[in-house]
Amino acid sequence: MSRLDELMTLLRFPSISAQRAHDGDVADCADWLVDKLSGMGFDARSHGTARHPIVVAKSPEVPGKPRVLIYGHYDVQPVDPIELWESDPFEPVVRDGRIYARGASDDKSELFAHILGVESLLQEGGGTLPVNVTFLLEGEEEVGSASLIDFLGKNRELLACDVIVVSDTGMAAPDVPTFSYGLRGVACGELIVNGPAMDLHSGVFGGAVANPITVLAEMLATCHDAEGRVSIDGFYDGVEPPADWERVMWSRVPGMDDVSLAALTGVKALRTEAGYTGAECIYARPTFELNGIFGGYEGEGSKTVIPTKAVAKISCRLVPGQDPKRILQLVKAHFEKVAPKGVEIRFVNQHGGEAYVCDPHSRYGKAAQQALEEAFGNKPVLVREGGSIPVIAEMSKQLGVDALLLGLCLPDARIHSPNENMRLDLWEKAIEMSASLLRRLGESE
Amino acid sequence: MSRLDELMTLLRFPSISAQRAHDGDVADCADWLVDKLSGMGFDARSHGTARHPIVVAKSPEVPGKPRVLIYGHYDVQPVDPIELWESDPFEPVVRDGRIYARGASDDKSELFAHILGVESLLQEGGGTLPVNVTFLLEGEEEVGSASLIDFLGKNRELLACDVIVVSDTGMAAPDVPTFSYGLRGVACGELIVNGPAMDLHSGVFGGAVANPITVLAEMLATCHDAEGRVSIDGFYDGVEPPADWERVMWSRVPGMDDVSLAALTGVKALRTEAGYTGAECIYARPTFELNGIFGGYEGEGSKTVIPTKAVAKISCRLVPGQDPKRILQLVKAHFEKVAPKGVEIRFVNQHGGEAYVCDPHSRYGKAAQQALEEAFGNKPVLVREGGSIPVIAEMSKQLGVDALLLGLCLPDARIHSPNENMRLDLWEKAIEMSASLLRRLGESE
Repeated sequence: MSRLDELMTLLRFPSISAQRAHDGDVADCADWLVDKLSGMGFDARSHGTARHPIVVAKSPEVPGKPRVLIYGHYDVQPVDPIELWESDPFEPVVRDGRIYARGASDDKSELFAHILGVESLLQEGGGTLPVNVTFLLEGEEEVGSASLIDFLGKNRELLACDVIVVSDTGMAAPDVPTFSYGLRGVACGELIVNGPAMDLHSGVFGGAVANPITVLAEMLATCHDAEGRVSIDGFYDGVEPPADWERVMWSRVPGMDDVSLAALTGVKALRTEAGYTGAECIYARPTFELNGIFGGYEGEGSKTVIPTKAVAKISCRLVPGQDPKRILQLVKAHFEKVAPKGVEIRFVNQHGGEAYVCDPHSRYGKAAQQALEEAFGNKPVLVREGGSIPVIAEMSKQLGVDALLLGLCLPDARIHSPNENMRLDLWEKAIEMSASLLRRLGESE
Repeated sequence: MSRLDELMTLLRFPSISAQRAHDGDVADCADWLVDKLSGMGFDARSHGTARHPIVVAKSPEVPGKPRVLIYGHYDVQPVDPIELWESDPFEPVVRDGRIYARGASDDKSELFAHILGVESLLQEGGGTLPVNVTFLLEGEEEVGSASLIDFLGKNRELLACDVIVVSDTGMAAPDVPTFSYGLRGVACGELIVNGPAMDLHSGVFGGAVANPITVLAEMLATCHDAEGRVSIDGFYDGVEPPADWERVMWSRVPGMDDVSLAALTGVKALRTEAGYTGAECIYARPTFELNGIFGGYEGEGSKTVIPTKAVAKISCRLVPGQDPKRILQLVKAHFEKVAPKGVEIRFVNQHGGEAYVCDPHSRYGKAAQQALEEAFGNKPVLVREGGSIPVIAEMSKQLGVDALLLGLCLPDARIHSPNENMRLDLWEKAIEMSASLLRRLGESE
């Protein structure tokens, strides 16, 4: 079976972790990966969890060589809206050099590139690898990685390693290999302003009672100053501005200058924290964002009601130095401080995760950049991702090592959306990149 | 047929003006009213309009006597949620002294009390009334009265009168007859803040682009000052505070003190414009209210998106001196002033209507209060309604006369809701009240 046929087989599993009806498909996909890795000589096992299996596969021991933990996730997002797909999300097809399927970028092709990279090294080395490899492949990344976080705490010895390798982030552009040495953390919550016991007629009662939407808007308006900074006491405690070398480096990342970012997002101009470029704000500054707001009437025309409540969905992106639990406490304390008297508010904590940053100039970081350059033929750009993958910060902390993020998702890969895809030429290069990386990590000891 | 049987017949028409499927029922209801009034010796006609018929019925001419225009509407609100009705909304039943049906309070029982009041006077006077009566009964009040407003402009002579009588407002409490000498006006609009061209990942882009929800909240927070006053330039131009005698009078309206209003609405304490009681704010102060807000994610948990737009539904209640069109211009100008640079906002005007106030101590006003006291056995309270009935201000203006608002809807009448009802003892008194009123108006010339 060709490499592409094997990838297609992997992509055919409808391993949607969020949907109970697909629990069997998720388990089948794990079993297929165990078979594949066993066939390569790995000691591979599917570990049962409260939800979806975790695949751990270890290469035959090569004494004295570093141990590399390659992380990936074989679960995928739901496919809705299905009517916008040009072909069946679980029947991969190749069009114009891209393979289209759910999971084509996020994360099956990426994790499978590493498996194939290892396979090519095994052939090259006559069954011996230049490093010790542990694959850690989970089936719950799209639903929060709860089982893996539990598993990490209980299996530190099994997963012990010198460095983690992950391909589950973005590539700046097709010819721009990207090394991410950081991720923002996240802290989510919900603010609810409760008003009258029932929706009131805004004529019959308007002017006499606090309107929850007005109160909510007024409270939310206190969260930023005129310069775009977050006005919550203590929010920036421990936050360092990006280093000068980072600012210089980021100013050269293709597509990340302010004009390009405005064009990409379809706004007339960026609106950033005073003193920082768009890229700097995304990579290295914390945010307080409103992801949703609702209350009262949303239909056509008007309905003159004072609603019983109004709600805002809030998420903060965090940088090193910020603890998600503490940030949620600060946000809550701020709302309690600014809430008008006589109004009942409630702040509900949702999930959170710490930021992650490693030194891109470490021995392993340099090896990763060399591997990217070898495979893609260009010097990689060094960025911090604006997004969050809390499980990576957690793995790095629990195992006490760096995670190297070698992103392969193109900006137009449509991950989480209809017509998710992967450029096959880049995927082939990713296989080479994985082999190069392990070779260099083996040398670097 | 007894009076109650006749009322039940009227209530059985499912004359829902909003629903095309009921167009025939609305017309049938108009025809039934024409037949009833013709049977009483009136020159009654159903006038076709672009939508629902308007019934005009004139009593035989009594020279030298004032002409009284009695307005009512025979259309009703939709019945949803139907499952919450304890009995069929169009099969009236009497339970515990109340009649339950859609339209039982709003406005069929009320207009029919006036028809029966006139009928009793005809019997009393051997076919002659103490005044000239014109009934003006429309079928579009629940959908905005567009046809009537058009009809008014074209039929001033047909509708010419000395005073208008309307029972379509509230009664403060069962033993508290209520004379409303004012209504607030209204001006509605929608504010849309447009942001990025598509929903953005709040990690991948957060910090670099203006968040439409944040911008909307910040703009809305500029609309009131800390004292609860509307902070829109020119908003209060021409607005007079209530007169001292009104403030004294309103302080005595049962159920309208601040403690009772808080209990009624289920809030810990009222929140009013500084220097005014709840009743004063409702009766005589303009408001800027947010009736709805939405943008981004509203589901369970979190979805970390920066939405492409955020929207607020706005309505202002107006008092005499404020023109709805001008108020919408001021609101728009305010938003244009406070909108941050680089953000695209849109303000869309919706419907509006002027406030209405007449002198409760006029000759006709006094007659109305005497009639209320005679029928209900208590001195009436004098209030201005916080709600808006734009067609009443329009009729008063077009016809150049006062409108006397003699409300019969009890606070628990559940108008527009399931289990709408009318207390039959009050309905019987309303028939007497109508006869008393016309007698007194006849004398007062």
